[in-house]
Amino acid sequence: MDKSRLEAFSDGVFAVAITLLALNLAVKGPGQHLANELWDLWPSFLAYLVSFLTIGIIWVNHHVLIRAISKVDRTLLFLNLVLLLFVVLIPFATATVAQYRLQGPGARASVALYAAVFLGMSVGFGAIFEWTLHGDRRHQQLPPHQHWPARIRFVSGGAVYLIAFGVALLNAIASFVIIALVAVYYIVERTPSDDGAGTGG
Amino acid sequence: MDKSRLEAFSDGVFAVAITLLALNLAVKGPGQHLANELWDLWPSFLAYLVSFLTIGIIWVNHHVLIRAISKVDRTLLFLNLVLLLFVVLIPFATATVAQYRLQGPGARASVALYAAVFLGMSVGFGAIFEWTLHGDRRHQQLPPHQHWPARIRFVSGGAVYLIAFGVALLNAIASFVIIALVAVYYIVERTPSDDGAGTGG
Amino acid sequence: MDKSRLEAFSDGVFAVAITLLALNLAVKGPGQHLANELWDLWPSFLAYLVSFLTIGIIWVNHHVLIRAISKVDRTLLFLNLVLLLFVVLIPFATATVAQYRLQGPGARASVALYAAVFLGMSVGFGAIFEWTLHGDRRHQQLPPHQHWPARIRFVSGGAVYLIAFGVALLNAIASFVIIALVAVYYIVERTPSDDGAGTGG
Amino acid sequence: MDKSRLEAFSDGVFAVAITLLALNLAVKGPGQHLANELWDLWPSFLAYLVSFLTIGIIWVNHHVLIRAISKVDRTLLFLNLVLLLFVVLIPFATATVAQYRLQGPGARASVALYAAVFLGMSVGFGAIFEWTLHGDRRHQQLPPHQHWPARIRFVSGGAVYLIAFGVALLNAIASFVIIALVAVYYIVERTPSDDGAGTGG
Repeated sequence: MDKSRLEAFSDGVFAVAITLLALNLAVKGPGQHLANELWDLWPSFLAYLVSFLTIGIIWVNHHVLIRAISKVDRTLLFLNLVLLLFVVLIPFATATVAQYRLQGPGARASVALYAAVFLGMSVGFGAIFEWTLHGDRRHQQLPPHQHWPARIRFVSGGAVYLIAFGVALLNAIASFVIIALVAVYYIVERTPSDDGAGTGG
Repeated sequence: MDKSRLEAFSDGVFAVAITLLALNLAVKGPGQHLANELWDLWPSFLAYLVSFLTIGIIWVNHHVLIRAISKVDRTLLFLNLVLLLFVVLIPFATATVAQYRLQGPGARASVALYAAVFLGMSVGFGAIFEWTLHGDRRHQQLPPHQHWPARIRFVSGGAVYLIAFGVALLNAIASFVIIALVAVYYIVERTPSDDGAGTGG
Repeated sequence: MDKSRLEAFSDGVFAVAITLLALNLAVKGPGQHLANELWDLWPSFLAYLVSFLTIGIIWVNHHVLIRAISKVDRTLLFLNLVLLLFVVLIPFATATVAQYRLQGPGARASVALYAAVFLGMSVGFGAIFEWTLHGDRRHQQLPPHQHWPARIRFVSGGAVYLIAFGVALLNAIASFVIIALVAVYYIVERTPSDDGAGTGG
Repeated sequence: MDKSRLEAFSDGVFAVAITLLALNLAVKGPGQHLANELWDLWPSFLAYLVSFLTIGIIWVNHHVLIRAISKVDRTLLFLNLVLLLFVVLIPFATATVAQYRLQGPGARASVALYAAVFLGMSVGFGAIFEWTLHGDRRHQQLPPHQHWPARIRFVSGGAVYLIAFGVALLNAIASFVIIALVAVYYIVERTPSDDGAGTGG
């Protein structure tokens, strides 16, 4: 089974999800003072930015990881669906964060939802990575002594989202900042190796 | 006529339809108790999950079946459109089930609609499969004595949706459980053969 | 310049447009009698069906026509954009027809809009076809004596939409039936030749 | 790292964004005088047309520029995300312009937003172009003496959007006309060279 349709379908889902993010953005129309209204949309723009970058990063990492794979089986297709199940939820979680504006009642729950969706995505991505470690599923096998360091890097990606989830129960802004920093971190870090080990999503 | 654009177009439709599923998910915004509201959305999340997995499975099966095909003609393109006609209706049917929450008046009709859309999709998929059995349309022809067993497997997939449709007229929850079990069944079953015969959608 | 991205972009637009058609379909939720409400949606389902088939046919014809082309230039890319400009308007025109339900004031204008969008699409498609007739833009040139018969077939496709536009000003249902019959005609007709000459969209 | 998924993902985003443009178009349904209502939607149709053509042009230019690239690295993927970040905002900016109808309070701010989004897109595109000038990132390097002329052509594309932004603060219609003229200019100009230098988006 070739990889091209797995990639095409995943790219399609990533592309639609990242474009639907902007559906949250809307103004009320004439009669309002537009500049004020746009300024008032700052939580929407901020959430859009963080979600856009996070989906973009996951897409890059997905690209790198799938490229390293030598064969596709039904287990991989299913694990990929688990990843996409959470990717598709990102526009909903983003809209919810934007509606609650990081303040007031509900803001903490909204960011907890946001962190939970990214955590689920991270788990799905980690499961695909774990799947690649076994058998002859990669063009070039990772040597066994690199498995645990690679896993730890992966787990730490998800662990940050887990921490963000916990922090969200206490403080919405702090949790949102953590999630934003994950995106910034992955953009700044330019892993020279392309084996997918540095991409914990 | 090559298969690449058939696959690309179908993948696009599958990807958009699966991503639009999440448009059903929305909260009312500040002033609500978000955690309660999210809890209250359980029918939406449940319907999202079942529809996502079902579209995912159909996509995998479509992948396998098209790969086995050696030539594309206009009849196949048309049969594929019939399949996609029902795939595109899934977000609508999912939204309807979520709105009626599996209880109260209208719930049975909503699940009947849901089952009917999946039944239509199954018929479309079965028609493509039937088309592959004739002439030299597959890279490797199925031997004639395997035609009927393969058809029966296909028909049984559709038959379960037909039963779910009938059950929906009596009990919404029972019908929904049947439809969910079809998705679980196809995920758990990992058909070792890749000839498409085990994929009744 | 290769054709793959022209095809990928066009397929993406076709796939999104065809899937957005179903966004018109929505019920009002609990408190309504769902079966009645679904029955009441018949203009939406009917318009969905005709638009879905028409986009599907155009996609098939686009596939055939682009395949025959040997080189891509900026003129072709622009003509293709003109075609897509009208394809993207189809969900809007379909929603408008569905809202006006083929009866009462506004119904005739809604079907006239519908016919006008299909007419625009047909003109865009015809312009691409005309472009293919000149120079060495096809893998196999159509012999000159076939140009006019091919053009007439194309013009007749657009001419039917022009007639439908005129009829819409008098009678909405008659015009809609004409547009539906174009879709049925192209599905029933299975042009044996694949040169794109028989595909007037 | 091959270019195919970069192109596939970008094409997907372009295709979804261009198709979502038409979601702005909607009529209120029966009870209205449809012909009048359609006529009243002229700002929506006009904004749709300009945005459609601009996205189409950017897609063509993206196509040409990526084709000239010999290797893909993470920096390019990130710069491409910056470009797409603004492409995804175009339907929102278009809807805002359409709502404010180029007149009355808010119209100037709406066109300023529109110009700002196109300016951001232009900057993202220019950054990709700048990236291609260094190292061995193109199949055929541009000779150094052509760098500055090429940059100036690029900067002038963005500069027009910057001027349009400034003009928007004074007069909405004048600014919108400038933005529309950019689209017309790029369509009329058919750069014979395909090196991407003439495509400042």
